[in-house]
Amino acid sequence: MWKPDRQSQKPLYEQIADHLEQKISYGEFPPGSLLPSERKLAEQLGVNRSTVILAFAELRSMGIIESRSGSGTRVSQYKWGATPRHTPNWKRYAEGGSFLPNVPFLRRIREALSQTPSMIDFASGELSGDLSPMNEIAMLMDEHHYTSYLGYANPQGYIPLRQALVAYLDQYRGIQTTESSILITSGSQQSLFLITQCLLSPGDAVAIEDPSYCYSLPMFQSAGLRLFRLPVDRDGVRPEDIRTLYKKHRIKMIFTNPNYQNPTGTFLTDERRNKLLEIASELGLPIVEDDPYSLTDYEGEFCPPLKSVDPHGNIIYIGSFSKIVASGLRIGWMVAPHAIVERLADARQQMDFGLSVIPQQVAAQFLISSHFEPQLNRLRMQLRYKRDLLIEALQKELPGLIQYNIPQGGIHMWCKLVPEVNDAKLLEEGIKKGVVFVPGSVYGSDSGYVRFTFARAKEEDIGPGIAAFAEALRELIK
Amino acid sequence: MWKPDRQSQKPLYEQIADHLEQKISYGEFPPGSLLPSERKLAEQLGVNRSTVILAFAELRSMGIIESRSGSGTRVSQYKWGATPRHTPNWKRYAEGGSFLPNVPFLRRIREALSQTPSMIDFASGELSGDLSPMNEIAMLMDEHHYTSYLGYANPQGYIPLRQALVAYLDQYRGIQTTESSILITSGSQQSLFLITQCLLSPGDAVAIEDPSYCYSLPMFQSAGLRLFRLPVDRDGVRPEDIRTLYKKHRIKMIFTNPNYQNPTGTFLTDERRNKLLEIASELGLPIVEDDPYSLTDYEGEFCPPLKSVDPHGNIIYIGSFSKIVASGLRIGWMVAPHAIVERLADARQQMDFGLSVIPQQVAAQFLISSHFEPQLNRLRMQLRYKRDLLIEALQKELPGLIQYNIPQGGIHMWCKLVPEVNDAKLLEEGIKKGVVFVPGSVYGSDSGYVRFTFARAKEEDIGPGIAAFAEALRELIK
Repeated sequence: MWKPDRQSQKPLYEQIADHLEQKISYGEFPPGSLLPSERKLAEQLGVNRSTVILAFAELRSMGIIESRSGSGTRVSQYKWGATPRHTPNWKRYAEGGSFLPNVPFLRRIREALSQTPSMIDFASGELSGDLSPMNEIAMLMDEHHYTSYLGYANPQGYIPLRQALVAYLDQYRGIQTTESSILITSGSQQSLFLITQCLLSPGDAVAIEDPSYCYSLPMFQSAGLRLFRLPVDRDGVRPEDIRTLYKKHRIKMIFTNPNYQNPTGTFLTDERRNKLLEIASELGLPIVEDDPYSLTDYEGEFCPPLKSVDPHGNIIYIGSFSKIVASGLRIGWMVAPHAIVERLADARQQMDFGLSVIPQQVAAQFLISSHFEPQLNRLRMQLRYKRDLLIEALQKELPGLIQYNIPQGGIHMWCKLVPEVNDAKLLEEGIKKGVVFVPGSVYGSDSGYVRFTFARAKEEDIGPGIAAFAEALRELIK
Repeated sequence: MWKPDRQSQKPLYEQIADHLEQKISYGEFPPGSLLPSERKLAEQLGVNRSTVILAFAELRSMGIIESRSGSGTRVSQYKWGATPRHTPNWKRYAEGGSFLPNVPFLRRIREALSQTPSMIDFASGELSGDLSPMNEIAMLMDEHHYTSYLGYANPQGYIPLRQALVAYLDQYRGIQTTESSILITSGSQQSLFLITQCLLSPGDAVAIEDPSYCYSLPMFQSAGLRLFRLPVDRDGVRPEDIRTLYKKHRIKMIFTNPNYQNPTGTFLTDERRNKLLEIASELGLPIVEDDPYSLTDYEGEFCPPLKSVDPHGNIIYIGSFSKIVASGLRIGWMVAPHAIVERLADARQQMDFGLSVIPQQVAAQFLISSHFEPQLNRLRMQLRYKRDLLIEALQKELPGLIQYNIPQGGIHMWCKLVPEVNDAKLLEEGIKKGVVFVPGSVYGSDSGYVRFTFARAKEEDIGPGIAAFAEALRELIK
């Protein structure tokens, strides 16, 4: 971040005025936008507030900014003097478009995390550095020289990675498939984006779990879909609800996350799995099965995905490396009928011209290496340990104030708060105390829940993080 | 590709029948879809046609496929017996959605290239392997251990890469900017996708060059935009046309590629640049400047982008590594007002959760390394040499049949055919003779043009490729 140069001949306030003028002329602060307060800017730049007041006075005298008491300092609408129409109204463009912005809670969490590096993070759905096999990946990258041709890659994805996935899916997921039915994506998010954008039309009705990750994705609304809820109870979704939704709304697709569901951690029972497949097949309805967590089962048990028992080919299966290896690789995959894979590969070409071959090579190497199996074993042990730390902290800090089921896999803990509190206030109070988590309303229609993700925080931070959360909660209910 | 096992006890025809049945049951050949012909399949599998006939008979007897004389062999609609509704109608889903498929010519070219590896490629807009610094990149990857934390990356892109780009843009492009005004994308394609999806709304009117790359992108139509043409003559677009389009259609954005334009290779004159900026600024219209080629100027001259002389901040600038380093890195960038960058970074998070940090690290290392400048020098020399080889071949093989301007930079040659021929027939005839190129109608409204890209083909293939093209052309006009 820019700071004024204390060795320079130029007074600090002039340096700051020049710097701000440059930012304004580059449109970083568009006409009409609010500047940071004098106090905040002084803090950021490490100068006295009076220095900033002088810099602002300088800019005001040039007609570049305007201050009104009580409403802060703004970039002048007429900064270019006589002709106010010179600069496009960027703000209007930024607010236009049909693609919806992220939900405000998630933006707020991201902002808090970037502003305060010491913030304890129970919000991000990803692994901490020590859970990812960084050394093993670095070793593989040292061993293998990536000198192959770096042209535009195969639209369906790097062939050796697809080959490695055919073997992986067979061995670890009980799914028999072929290279030509696999599409490599940059993760589950891109898989879902392609499906919602390219296989469905605005106005189509789809069923999503409530609560669920999908609930938090404006991409569904951006695609113009009508969303209908499948309530999740202790045993997962109730298959009969699908029949009802089909009759009432002619739903065209079902989105589900049956193994250690995000956010509830529930595992769909065998009986319901069979019923779900039976009903989908009877109605000819495709199911999108998102399966990021099942290899994290703490006992190391095999959790068969729906796709492994899909006699009639109703399932589009989505997997990814993000929750078992490293989210930063940005490698995911989809298993679907070839016609679907081909269509989505073609659309993806138009959106981003495919993925870089480098992380695809790394992923393929890692998958066939001797490091993969030990990574899974280590991950399961460590996740269970972190879950136990979290439960211990919840029991110690919040006795009688919180209820939960204990997950047997995955990275999330879904907690019901006994006292009634306002989601937004709780999050703000948590941020003040140095902890972020996701308010339950991001994922569904019931209020009074919180999702704690225990994979991202450091082990030693879990106790203090929950203590901080407890303080925040007590602040609101006192 | 799968082949039957000649050592196996199982007869070849049974192996083939089993293989096809598996493909059908995985939905690779959905119900109702056409199977390859007996002749073609026999060729692909390296067996006699009679063996395939036996395999088909086997599948027919099981009710899995159906043959009708004259219309080939299809997967049965009722392959699951009594209940035809078991499998979703995947074909309908693949054909649904509002995102349009790629233009047929581009799909056909891609298909031809993947089926015939020896095809001479004047179609792909990318560098050949020897033009990319593969050894240097491999060396950098060996030198630097990528053991850093592989979590979800910064939504705007890896910070050291943005820092390297601030210096690069200043030194090589005359653009002063700051890290916070840069968004890292996976290339120009993703930059354009984000802009068209997120800053514009369905029904908005935009101006695109005719002919141009944008013309070939169904992403514009998928976003529901109304496209209006800015004809490109020898000196680029005519700025006054913008005023006319604004008056008539209230265009909201201008897309331009002023330096060595794709496909025409034209360079917008200084006079028109100034006029263009003046008019855009007067109308408060944003310009999206796509600038992939200007560092390829064969004389090594500095070609200032519009963004470097953009007094009123009208320009969103798009750059990429694809045409100067390697397309397979999938690294591009956008320079825009911070409000725009923030909005697009947020939207991209929802689409794919950002880019893998690995290629971003590689790109940052390469950009600040001592290899970057020599790569540019070598590239310019080699591109000029390839251009000269192409011109020589055109003069030798097609005297009097073709007209063109000689480009001074870039990787494309835009040629007018003197005889009138049908685009589609010419492409098919070319494929038969072993050469692909892009028919001009992909890029614009005028017929009778061809785009030859000379960066991708090997030096020794350029002569024979044009000879093959000449044969194809003569075949059609004889």
